Amino acid sequence: MNQQKLNKHISGQFNAELEEVRNQVLVMGGLVEQQLSDAITAMHKQDLDLARQTVARDQEVNALEVEIAEDCTRIIAKRQPAASDLRLVLVVLKTITDLERIGDAAKRISRMVIDNADQPQPPLVSIENMGRRAVSMLHQGLDAFARMDLTAAIAVHKQDSQLNRDYESIVRELMTFMMEDPRSIPQVLKVLWCVRSLERVGDRVQHLCEYIIYFVKGKDVRHRSDEDIYNLLD
Amino acid sequence: MNQQKLNKHISGQFNAELEEVRNQVLVMGGLVEQQLSDAITAMHKQDLDLARQTVARDQEVNALEVEIAEDCTRIIAKRQPAASDLRLVLVVLKTITDLERIGDAAKRISRMVIDNADQPQPPLVSIENMGRRAVSMLHQGLDAFARMDLTAAIAVHKQDSQLNRDYESIVRELMTFMMEDPRSIPQVLKVLWCVRSLERVGDRVQHLCEYIIYFVKGKDVRHRSDEDIYNLLD
Repeated sequence: MNQQKLNKHISGQFNAELEEVRNQVLVMGGLVEQQLSDAITAMHKQDLDLARQTVARDQEVNALEVEIAEDCTRIIAKRQPAASDLRLVLVVLKTITDLERIGDAAKRISRMVIDNADQPQPPLVSIENMGRRAVSMLHQGLDAFARMDLTAAIAVHKQDSQLNRDYESIVRELMTFMMEDPRSIPQVLKVLWCVRSLERVGDRVQHLCEYIIYFVKGKDVRHRSDEDIYNLLD
Repeated sequence: MNQQKLNKHISGQFNAELEEVRNQVLVMGGLVEQQLSDAITAMHKQDLDLARQTVARDQEVNALEVEIAEDCTRIIAKRQPAASDLRLVLVVLKTITDLERIGDAAKRISRMVIDNADQPQPPLVSIENMGRRAVSMLHQGLDAFARMDLTAAIAVHKQDSQLNRDYESIVRELMTFMMEDPRSIPQVLKVLWCVRSLERVGDRVQHLCEYIIYFVKGKDVRHRSDEDIYNLLD
């Protein structure tokens, strides 16, 4: 095998490893999306079995995070990637942390369903809507990640403001509920933590979009204003 | 310069770069610790000026995070570190994310002080105590990081259970306060979010300790039981 062929062979293997790690992120993302969707269904239908399953499956998400992180470390040590290859590996490392935390949110919501079972429920319809919006944002964020699509990433990033408005409105609704029936406070607080978690899911999907922007543009846009970020499309 | 001398020279430069990035983390950590401490003082003394300063200084923390992350990426690309050098760079990348989020907690508490000014206050003494404990945990965690000290890291990791007990007890206290005076709910909720943030500071210091363990032992202990982690000392 001459040197050129060998180089091509090695870079072929390297690309396969990068591709594999990227696929693993999408597998993990799909699992997290399912977990979040199940948690919201469990809450809406008061389905305790589904809630328990969702709690139990969180460890699959955790295991995937550890596995993918190890793969990334191995790739950096063995392949010494540079430029966009290195950015991809670093983006994967960051993305899996946020995905794992979204998995935690699904677990938290499922636990609340189990804890609050058989007790009078505060109004949950608008929380279900907010939850579906968060799942959809995550789905679109993962789609943008799969294609490393800058335009899609920015479009998803923008959706967070609607999720924040949902959040504000639900918090007001739950506050009124507590003021009218102060005995409900301990139980409604548990629901409030879940709503807060859903609001944080939106922030985490925004991180995911910022990583895509970093990969495509080579620019770290964390802590920048939304306007700065959206101007990148011009 | 012969090859051996050159290698030594390069590795000397490399060590200096690693040392520099580690120092930067300690600078950032010191700033975040000060921010958190100031936020708690501002809350305790109702010091609006200090609260406003703390909010403003958050961008220094953010800027340091971006700067250190860039340095790390450059080191990986240029120096192709392996083994413990690579672990150190990866640990720095993770640590600064958690430090930045602790900075956000300081900002959140300071904002609450500003928002809730001139309104009747819920009992804040036990929150101050909890806050001081969180600051002390962070301080000791950064100390352990400076020395990459496994024993110290595990000792700090264990302290989180006390912070969680503080948290549970304060939440009960604030719930009682709301039930007795439902009109206070909107304002007490703001305080509750801050208490929640302090509880999360403990989790983030635990992450920091887990990164130290990863550096020293080469083992990823995230998602492991506390018992598993504490057995590493044997």
